[in-house]
Amino acid sequence: MSQRSTQRSEHSTAGAYVHPGEEFTRDTAYIEDRIVRDPARADVPEGAQAWPVEAGRYRLVAARACPWANRTLIVRRLLGLEDALPVGLPGPVHDARSWTFDLDPDGRDPVLGIERLQEAYFARYPDYPRGITVPAVVEVASGQVVTNDFPRITEDLAKEWVAFHREGAPDLWPAELEDEMREVMQRVYTEVNNGVYRCGFAGSQEAYEKAYERLWAAMDWLEDRLATRRYLMGEHITEADVRLFTTLVRFDPVYHSHFKCSRHKLTEMPHLWGYARDLFQTPGFGDTVDFEQIKQHYFVVHEDINPSQIVPVGPDLGNWVSAHGREALGGSPFGSGTAPGPVRPEERVDARHTPLSG
Amino acid sequence: MSQRSTQRSEHSTAGAYVHPGEEFTRDTAYIEDRIVRDPARADVPEGAQAWPVEAGRYRLVAARACPWANRTLIVRRLLGLEDALPVGLPGPVHDARSWTFDLDPDGRDPVLGIERLQEAYFARYPDYPRGITVPAVVEVASGQVVTNDFPRITEDLAKEWVAFHREGAPDLWPAELEDEMREVMQRVYTEVNNGVYRCGFAGSQEAYEKAYERLWAAMDWLEDRLATRRYLMGEHITEADVRLFTTLVRFDPVYHSHFKCSRHKLTEMPHLWGYARDLFQTPGFGDTVDFEQIKQHYFVVHEDINPSQIVPVGPDLGNWVSAHGREALGGSPFGSGTAPGPVRPEERVDARHTPLSG
Repeated sequence: MSQRSTQRSEHSTAGAYVHPGEEFTRDTAYIEDRIVRDPARADVPEGAQAWPVEAGRYRLVAARACPWANRTLIVRRLLGLEDALPVGLPGPVHDARSWTFDLDPDGRDPVLGIERLQEAYFARYPDYPRGITVPAVVEVASGQVVTNDFPRITEDLAKEWVAFHREGAPDLWPAELEDEMREVMQRVYTEVNNGVYRCGFAGSQEAYEKAYERLWAAMDWLEDRLATRRYLMGEHITEADVRLFTTLVRFDPVYHSHFKCSRHKLTEMPHLWGYARDLFQTPGFGDTVDFEQIKQHYFVVHEDINPSQIVPVGPDLGNWVSAHGREALGGSPFGSGTAPGPVRPEERVDARHTPLSG
Repeated sequence: MSQRSTQRSEHSTAGAYVHPGEEFTRDTAYIEDRIVRDPARADVPEGAQAWPVEAGRYRLVAARACPWANRTLIVRRLLGLEDALPVGLPGPVHDARSWTFDLDPDGRDPVLGIERLQEAYFARYPDYPRGITVPAVVEVASGQVVTNDFPRITEDLAKEWVAFHREGAPDLWPAELEDEMREVMQRVYTEVNNGVYRCGFAGSQEAYEKAYERLWAAMDWLEDRLATRRYLMGEHITEADVRLFTTLVRFDPVYHSHFKCSRHKLTEMPHLWGYARDLFQTPGFGDTVDFEQIKQHYFVVHEDINPSQIVPVGPDLGNWVSAHGREALGGSPFGSGTAPGPVRPEERVDARHTPLSG
């Protein structure tokens, strides 16, 4: 049976996420500009441009609810880029047009002065035709979006923003592991990060069942891989862990039920569950996670799979801070580096929305 | 905030199960006729009548999908009433009008000759205004529904159909425990059996959160009660266990996600989970359970909470046949009685729909 493969974003397009009879296919056409050390020599895709790394010139816009944006919040913190790249935080629930700064005073980002992220996209491209996605990097002076190409954003934070990394910042892209990392991350992306959406937005029973098989084949592969490795690439955390973590942390609160990824809870996959807790309890990971915003986002925005928009009270999250025993596998999260310091007060997750104390 | 309390059935009413702003309140007005040993002396509610117990005169109509009907299938088997009270089994998915015999040849119950259970209700009351519910007992000769009063049906099977009980049938209503049993069953009914529906059909966030609190208060009470008792009433199974079991067996496959009862999976409540498996593995309980029909029913019929009507593949059910360790609490399921024999071939659950082998 043939399936149309109209591409689409899961963000901010009006109302309909499930298209009857169709498999979910993500629109991956992003604004591919990059922010780099040396724009003249930068490798940029055709039609895109290179911007210079510069402290304070840009603002990262990253909703805590969104798994793709969550990656940037983790990497920024692991690398200590809080001063060089300040952050704006839209609320969890966007409308058909855009993510909004509804958590800020007067509903406006205090630096960009805008109510909707859409304004920064339109400032750059008045007819911008695609989804208004986070994360996005906006040039403060012009109010224009520079890029929303999320995998590139975190890679460039690690490789191009080096001059602004904190002392002790971990090496998230060890050169000797990069080829294998890219393979692992590609599989994690297509099968897990996006795999859960393929389950949840399936437009037919057939498409859903195929998506479910693919997801769980990958989950079993990860469970096996993490049985003997403390982290995805071995001894230390890398970008590959960041990318898997943001899906795992949403698994039981959202994907398990809302996207019907229910073969097991994450808590029933011993190695993945130990691994996820190990990361959650590592500074830079769990302290970026707002479980309440995460649930609000999915259960309110995807009205076509949850018409009542009622947000589940569960699951109980107290077990995220329980002992995970992963130290027995050896390794050390930051390698020759160190843990990031405490979260800045203005960036702390609401204490009612996280099981982390203090 | 005041809430209207329009009563309704969760069965077979057209389309809309969630009523915005309202708490779910079950319509508990059933046809209260009874089938008894001595109709002349029977205690029947005003307006209802008493029918005589008689082997082969009636047909039990009980969809495997439905938890209320599932009770009757279990009790009938525990007591060995298969010959005295034959059964008709509608399929899992009913339409707006009625449960249907879509699993039978030509889509008709082979004895009653009807396509829709509604026909038996209309044969009795041409203007029958309420939901067409299962279980229902139908008089074969007249094709008329006698009763659909599910708690009374199972009680009368135990107390009135005694002449037809198999040898070794357990005493499901021990006289010395009856007062306490009624208290326990009442709390199980309002807080758990119906409590999950109160969560799933809540018409507002507020109504849902109140329902969730009530459900989990009761689940904690049961978890505690079953820590030291093998069965709800102590050493042996009773009707109280039957009534709790049919909700527990649906908990992870349906209520956890579909009704947002997701504080924990049943598998995360050690005593309840051990207890549920103990019963599941006891002849008469698990062998009446068709997990596939159960999932089909809820996820297809409740279109307003699952508009895609996609049925989850999960959860993995292999663990229902794992060792439960409850023997350590002592007791014996059938007391001075014995286990029922094998399920009759024509009543066996499809082997693809159950983790029980053989």
